[in-house]
Order: sequence, then structure tokens, then C-alpha cells
Amino acid sequence: MILQAVIDIAEICARKGVQDIVLSPGSRCAPLTLAFARHPQLRVRTVPDERSAAFIGLGIAQQTGLPVVLVCTSGTAAYNYAPAVAEAFYQHIPLLVLTADRPPEWIDQLDGQTIRQSHIYGGHVKRSLDFPVGSTHTDDLWFAGRLINEGLNEVAAYPPGPVHINIPLREPFYPEPGEEFAFSQDVKVIAELPSSFGLAPEAWEHLKKEMQRYQRVLVVAGQNKKDEALYAQVKQFCQATGAVFVTDAISNQQVAGESINYHDVFLGAKNVSDSTALAPDLLITFHKSLISKNLKLFLRKQKQLHHWHIQPAGMVADTFQALTQIIRTTPQEFFRQMAAGPRLPVSPAFAQAWFNLDQKGKAVLEAFQENSPFSEFQACYHFLRSLPAQSQVHLANSMSVRYANLIGVAEKEGVEVFANRGTSGIDGSTSTAVGAALSTDTLVTLLTGDMAFLYDRNALWHNYLPQNLRILVLNNHGGGIFRMLEGPRSQPELRAYFETDQRQTAQRTAEDMGLQYHQVTDAAALTALFPTFFDLAAGPQLIEVVTDSSENFAAFSLYKEQVAKISNG
Amino acid sequence: MILQAVIDIAEICARKGVQDIVLSPGSRCAPLTLAFARHPQLRVRTVPDERSAAFIGLGIAQQTGLPVVLVCTSGTAAYNYAPAVAEAFYQHIPLLVLTADRPPEWIDQLDGQTIRQSHIYGGHVKRSLDFPVGSTHTDDLWFAGRLINEGLNEVAAYPPGPVHINIPLREPFYPEPGEEFAFSQDVKVIAELPSSFGLAPEAWEHLKKEMQRYQRVLVVAGQNKKDEALYAQVKQFCQATGAVFVTDAISNQQVAGESINYHDVFLGAKNVSDSTALAPDLLITFHKSLISKNLKLFLRKQKQLHHWHIQPAGMVADTFQALTQIIRTTPQEFFRQMAAGPRLPVSPAFAQAWFNLDQKGKAVLEAFQENSPFSEFQACYHFLRSLPAQSQVHLANSMSVRYANLIGVAEKEGVEVFANRGTSGIDGSTSTAVGAALSTDTLVTLLTGDMAFLYDRNALWHNYLPQNLRILVLNNHGGGIFRMLEGPRSQPELRAYFETDQRQTAQRTAEDMGLQYHQVTDAAALTALFPTFFDLAAGPQLIEVVTDSSENFAAFSLYKEQVAKISNG
Repeated sequence: MILQAVIDIAEICARKGVQDIVLSPGSRCAPLTLAFARHPQLRVRTVPDERSAAFIGLGIAQQTGLPVVLVCTSGTAAYNYAPAVAEAFYQHIPLLVLTADRPPEWIDQLDGQTIRQSHIYGGHVKRSLDFPVGSTHTDDLWFAGRLINEGLNEVAAYPPGPVHINIPLREPFYPEPGEEFAFSQDVKVIAELPSSFGLAPEAWEHLKKEMQRYQRVLVVAGQNKKDEALYAQVKQFCQATGAVFVTDAISNQQVAGESINYHDVFLGAKNVSDSTALAPDLLITFHKSLISKNLKLFLRKQKQLHHWHIQPAGMVADTFQALTQIIRTTPQEFFRQMAAGPRLPVSPAFAQAWFNLDQKGKAVLEAFQENSPFSEFQACYHFLRSLPAQSQVHLANSMSVRYANLIGVAEKEGVEVFANRGTSGIDGSTSTAVGAALSTDTLVTLLTGDMAFLYDRNALWHNYLPQNLRILVLNNHGGGIFRMLEGPRSQPELRAYFETDQRQTAQRTAEDMGLQYHQVTDAAALTALFPTFFDLAAGPQLIEVVTDSSENFAAFSLYKEQVAKISNG
Repeated sequence: MILQAVIDIAEICARKGVQDIVLSPGSRCAPLTLAFARHPQLRVRTVPDERSAAFIGLGIAQQTGLPVVLVCTSGTAAYNYAPAVAEAFYQHIPLLVLTADRPPEWIDQLDGQTIRQSHIYGGHVKRSLDFPVGSTHTDDLWFAGRLINEGLNEVAAYPPGPVHINIPLREPFYPEPGEEFAFSQDVKVIAELPSSFGLAPEAWEHLKKEMQRYQRVLVVAGQNKKDEALYAQVKQFCQATGAVFVTDAISNQQVAGESINYHDVFLGAKNVSDSTALAPDLLITFHKSLISKNLKLFLRKQKQLHHWHIQPAGMVADTFQALTQIIRTTPQEFFRQMAAGPRLPVSPAFAQAWFNLDQKGKAVLEAFQENSPFSEFQACYHFLRSLPAQSQVHLANSMSVRYANLIGVAEKEGVEVFANRGTSGIDGSTSTAVGAALSTDTLVTLLTGDMAFLYDRNALWHNYLPQNLRILVLNNHGGGIFRMLEGPRSQPELRAYFETDQRQTAQRTAEDMGLQYHQVTDAAALTALFPTFFDLAAGPQLIEVVTDSSENFAAFSLYKEQVAKISNG
């Protein structure tokens, strides 16, 4: 008979608030498959390509905020999860990864689908746990139940992330005819009440006093989900102190006219980024990564800068080589407390310089887009400016996310932005968008390139095509980003080894996967498609914008010429 | 300027006999890309999906026997190599995996495409090495050159396998205009002369004396490439001693009428596998894994069995739970020495029983195939029996390799069989066949299923479609293997969670990838295609055999009924 401790994994997951399971088919994992598929409170989906399955799980967890359980069979299946596990680790996405395994005595014995799975994700999981092997000793039963609890508690503890539990299973994998298959009613549950991450009163006094030393305070938000309560708090802090709030598109904190949204445009002008008018003396950051390379380079140049980073717990990055103070509380609590502090001796010219340039950046970008010949950059502009309010957009890595960060979503109300910027791979953007679309009723759009889309085409190879999914593929027949960079552009190997010339379109993939397909080559045809494309009732669709890599480069060069003229005057 | 030590990696590889490089595009790896692409003696190909790229490299190395170098950029790219790295580890395929990385100070700093790459392949590489970071100290230059030598020597040392070298790279990634880019003429080369793995004379005397104790000697070959010299030696040993030679299809040692080839058929009959007439007292094995589950179970049942395994070096598996003697020499040397030993007190009835049953197994299989209604099993039979002599066939995991092992290739002269039985994953069978086809002039056929084919469809997403590649896809719209197994078949979850019903065909993928596509549903249409399909001049083609999963199960059940009637009489 199947061990009750294995069946009860599903019950513990359900009791601990898990709702979604993504399985991939296999033989060794059958007891887990049956346990999850038969659990009345769990939503179970099955996706054959484990690489995509794991990113779909990540997309679901990104939306729900709840741990998603992944289940795969033994062998290289577990390795196919690894790209998404690493992304989840750096993007702080809660995933519980359950890999079925042979029992230890059969490792390395030339039996099928057997590799060394214990601790297989190395440094990219918060914990690696080994489920006990087949024993029915009461200590093992306590251990088994405890492990699942520990795993789920660790997944959710701030900052959330992936935990791996390797589960060695002996036959039988299936119940005998007539054998009872039921979940125990007395499973072990260890609840964990999280900390609120407050600071001591003396620490607040210290920070408020410290802040009096600064006159040019820049607040920069990294990647996070939309958080309107936090935004209100940051706004209040900026109003109270004269600090300036800079927001990348993936921060989900952009508001037209209130935050600085076009920094990635105007900091591209050398005389602007060199100008002392913008130089902060204190940088306050929170949340995760930034897209804007111009902003990163600008901040790394500020040699006198002090940098405070707010993060309740976990590893902190010194992204700007200027980190001086780590503050272990929530951003919301920080800005609430500090807004109530004494007025800072701020320089009004500092904020004026930033807002002045933000308007110039916006004007240059928009003038360029309205007047330039058609290119993939313009396609992104029309796309992002046409997004329906209260929808989601997912940005694939490489050029999609870079174009989008220049254009921003500040001008569109309630658009939430997602991108796999934990590891910035192109390997799972479509799968992540699919997972997200499965977990929300709003429209989910994906902006991607031909390389990222075709790489992850198995994202759509399963029976759960979301009706609210829309994909825009920028097809320049290769990795267009390499032509945008001076280094590879000037090498004879550009086309063959960097762009990697590929002749496919997304058409047959779209047809295989059941998405309505459109191909366009100009702005008029593209925008004409938008009314139905963005219609939630119109079903899953894919628009492919076919452009030429050299023309995209020419357009982007023209844009950069316009940007270079921006000045801090 | 780019460090000369990085450029010289290509030169050292060329001097050490490397011929083939598989790159995947990226920015961080650009200095490696340029070094390899510009080296006049190296053949460089670029494949965008790293999972497929690594299996293509494995397929090339499988054919050439020479180390293949893989080069990818930083981040999850490295993880996408992992399935093929694990397969190479267990299948003993020489791969040198070079992953570009950021320098250590930038790990975990929220910069793009940065993960913890050092030692990322865990227990699945022979060694993990860290290339020195950007220094120009003479000790670092010695270290850099030495590491590449150590890596390549370890890759090739018996048993061959993958080695990982993580290469942290700082900008610039590209030569400055006018900067010289040339390979050093005085690179460090450390040559390694391998051992011939001989035994001492006393050891041979001991073995010859020991062998006198046995009367029923069974020789079983595991997976390996074709080796006719070895076959001749085993044959001579069997003739001299009365031992019986059993060969799975993947052993590449099957010869009609000389080896036992239908054991996977007749050992499926319970009264045969229970019979003492077949029971060996000594089992001698060499090479790697076996497909035949019936043979494994039969051997594990023999409680009095002694098992000698011949393997020059490396980890040895106790596959049959009977291992008593490990012999550290080559199989060829072993059989040469032992054939010259004294005549054994063998039982002629033992060999008679095996050959008698081999004929019965063959007869039952052939009668079934000629008389049964069409199914995927029959499609495999016609396919394997029609293969041109001196061609290669690759078998995907799951049902393809199992059907093929029942049918065997003994009846076809000079057919060589490959299958990823190191880890038995479905994730890279097509890519491996593509890599093989790129490295031989003979016809390379792949027998695969819809799940394995669609999983690895990016195997064909690059610009090197081999003209000698032919693919036969058995499409039963799901993982048909699960219906063949009693456990999953009797569960209500069979169709949704085990077979994983999928509706796609391979047609659009074949069209995207440039293969001529044919679809058939019966034996007559299938065999009518073979003359052009097997014509080397006819270009790459794919035949999809569409069958119904329940009909396949019915046919296989009928086959098993026939098998059950075989008796040792």
C-alpha cells in the first residue's frame, strides 16, 4: 500500500493554505499525483515540459501570493525545474518543489530516471529537505509531517522563495484494488505567525536624526507588485520632505506627474547624467531589481552617496556600490514613520531638476514615437499606450523589457507590470504569463521577442490555454539586442553568433497552441487590431510584429540622437 | 582588452584535440564566442535553446568520441544545460561545459543574468573548476592554462564524462577597434597518456581458477557503441567455454543466431523466467545500462548468483543485487585472457535452453507482428526491420526504446543503436539525434513518441538541419506508456494526469523546422514511404504514425498473451 505519510502531504498542503498544484506526468511521482489530484480543495494542473511547468507555477504564485506546489518524477525532470527555481529564489516567489526519487539504495545503480537529486538546486533554494524513506516508525511519521510543515513555513517566511523536498518512493505507486485511499484527519500542522518587522523607538529616533544631514534625497523603488497603500505613504513622505521618487516600470509605482518615470530616457544624455543638479546625497531604496541601466550607472557614479536600503529580512544587494545602512522594517512602516519626522533641509532645486528632466524625457520619447518610421520600439510604444486600464502586462527579457522601461506605464491607469528580473533569463517569460493568466480574471498581455517566445513555446503545450491571454511577439528574426550594443555590432560574428539569425515566425506555434494569429508590419495594421486584441471576450490571440533588425537599430539610433540633445537647462 | 588567457582557451582546446563547439548566444560569453568562432581549426555551431544545445553537443561527442565544448552565457542558461550534463555523466560522454559568469563581487547584487554558478551541476560532473578572475599575475596565467588542461584531461579520462569550468568575465567583452585578437603560440599543454588497465598475472590466474567453479555462465552486455573486435572476443570466449551471451538492443552486440536477442520477449513468460533451466551460476557483465526489465528481474531473482563486472575504472553499479567481483580491466582484454584459460565444466543444456527460447521468442514476436492489427508496436517492427544496413537508429525514452528492445536489431546488419539511457529522460532524444546526424555521413533515424518529440522540439530550432536525419514519431496523443502499466491504467486519473492527453501532431513543428512531413495510420502507407524515407539523398523527413492509445494497449495485451504461452519445453 502507498504510505499514508505520502498521501497526507496533500492534506497538509491544503491545511496550510496551498491552493494550486502543477504536476508533470511520471511514474515514480504517481503517489503524489494521486494524492494531489484526489484532494477536494486543491486545483491541480498537469504540464508535460517541466521547464515550462515550473515557470507556470511561478506565474501562479506571483499572482496569488500563496505557495504553489510543483510535483515531478525522478531524474532530469528535476533539473528542468531549475531555471524557474533560480528565478523564484531571486524574485522571492513562494514555490514548494516536490521531486519524486528512487530510494537511496538505488541511486547510481543504472536504473532508469535516477540521478543525484538530494540538494540538486544548490544555492537557489531557501532549504533542501529529504523526505524519509518508506519507514512506518512513528518517528518517521512525525518527521514526514514536520518536514512538509517546515518546507511550507520556509517558503512563505519573508522573503518568500523556493524550498525543495526530495521524496524517495518505493513501489507500489498505486493503491491495490479495494485499498482505501483517504487523507488523515489528524495531520500535523505547525502554523507560523510572521513578524511585523518593527524597529525599536531608539532606532527611529536615530534615523530621523540622521536624515537631517541630507538635502537631496532620492527614493528609488525596485521590482514589486502594485501596492497602492505603500505608494500613498511614499508620496506623503516625498511631500513632507521634498524627496524625489524614481520608479522603473517594473516597480509598479509609476504615476504620471507624481513619480519620475522617464529617467531611463533622460539619464541616457551624457550631459544630464554628468550634471551635479541631479546628484542625490541620500538614496533610499526598497524592493527588488531595477531595469534602468542608465539609472544604475548614474547612481554608481555618485561617489559621495549614502544609500539606505529597507528590507525586512534576507540578503541585501549593494547594487550601487554605495550601501551604508540596512533598515530591517517594511517600506510602508519606514515611510510612515519618516514622513512624521521633522522637515528636512531639502533643496527645492533638486526636485525641480528631476521633474523638469522627466517632462523633457517624456516629450522627447513621445515626439520620437509619433514622428519616427515604424520599428519594434514604436510597436512597443503603441502597445503599451493602448493597454486597457486595470490589466497586466508581462515583459520578456532582452529588448522587450528595455523598450518597455523607456516607455513606461505611468500614462495608463492601473496597469500592473511583471517580468522575470530575478535572473533575467529568456527561458520562462511565456510560461510565467500563462501561469498569471490562469490566476486572474483581468486581461494578461505578454510583450516578447521571437527568441524568447520560440525558446519557451512549450509554455502553451497543455490543456489550459487561458482565454484572457494576449501575446505580442516582436519578430526581428534573431536576438536584436546584440545589434543595439556597440560591442557585438562591430564584430563580423554579429549575425551568425550573436543575433543568431532564425527564420521562424510564431504562426505555426500559435496555431498548434490554439491562439488566433495576426501578423503585421506597420503601425496602422497593428493599432487596427487592438480593439479586438484587448477585448477580454475575444479569446486568446497572438500578434506578430515583423520588423527588420537593421531598421530597428536605425530607429533606435535616431532615438538616441534625440536623447543626447536633452540638457539640464 | 579581452584577457589573453580567455582567448587562449580556444587554442588549448584545439591543441588538445577538440573539434566541435556548441555555443548559445549571450553577452557575457562574448569573449569565448569570439575566441571559438575565430579559431581556424574548430567547428562552431550556435543553438539558441541551451537545453537542446547541450544535448546536441552530447550527440556529437557520442559519435566522435572527442570532447565537445559547450559555451553559454551567465544565469539560468547554465541550468538549461543540466539535463544533458547529467545524461553525459551517466552515459560517459565527454563534454567540457564552459559557463560565462559575472565576477564574484557581482553575485547576488540584483544585476541581470546572475546566479550562483560555481559548482552548479552538483554530483553530475566529474569536476567543477573555477577559472581565475581577470588577473594578469603570472600565477593566474599558469592557473588559467592549467585549468583548461585539467578539465580536458578529466573529461577524457576513463570513464569519460562532463567537467564544468565556470568563467567569470569582466568587461570589455569585445576587442577595441584595432586591438589585436590572436591566439598565443606558446599555450600550456599537459598531455595525459591513459592506462591500458591490465591486470597482474596472479590476478588472471586467480580468475581462471575461480571460473572453474561455474557451470552455467551468462555474459550480458550493457549499453555501448558498436565494437566488432570486442564482439569477436566475446564470441570466442563463449565458443571456448560454453557461456551464453545475452544482448540488449542498446548493447550494439546483437548478431542473429549467435547472441541471445529475444530475452526481453521470452523472459516475459512467467513459467520461463521461473524456470531453473535458464538460471546462471555466474553472471559476467560489462558496459553500461540495460533496457530489459524482464532480464533485470530474472537476474535479481537468482539468489545463488555470483556476478563479475568488468570495468577499467569508475563507479560500479550493483544492478542485479548480486555483485561479487569487480574486475579493473577492459572487456576485450578480459575475454581474450579467459578464452585462453582451461575449458570450463559447462552444462550444454544451459546454452541449449537459452537458444531454444531465443528462437521461440523470435517466432512469437514475428508471428504476432505479421498477424496482428496495426498498432504503434507494429509500426516499430516494420520500421526497425526496414532500416538500411550500416545506419544509425536513435531511440527516445518511454515506449520507443521498450518496443525496440523487444524487436531488436539483430536481424539488420550493421545497424547501430543509441538511446539516452544514462538518465532515461525524454528531454533530449531529438537533440541527441540531431547532434549525431551532424557528425556522421550515414543515415540517422530517430524513433520517438509525441511527448518526447514535442518536449524537445527546439532540437531543430537552429540553422543546421542535417540532411541525413529521419524521424518517426509514434503519436498516440499522450504518454502511452502509462496505459501499458497496470497501476496507472486502473486509476481514474489515467487520461488527464498520466497519459496527459495532448492534441498536437508534429506537422507544424516539422514544417517550421524544414522537414518533409508525412502522416500515416496504417502499415501499408507506412511501408510505402520507406524507400524514399530511407534514401540518403531524399533530405530530412518526418513520418508521424497516428494511433489510438487504447488500440495500442489492446495490441500489446494480445502480444503479451502470446508471450505468456511460451514455455521452456
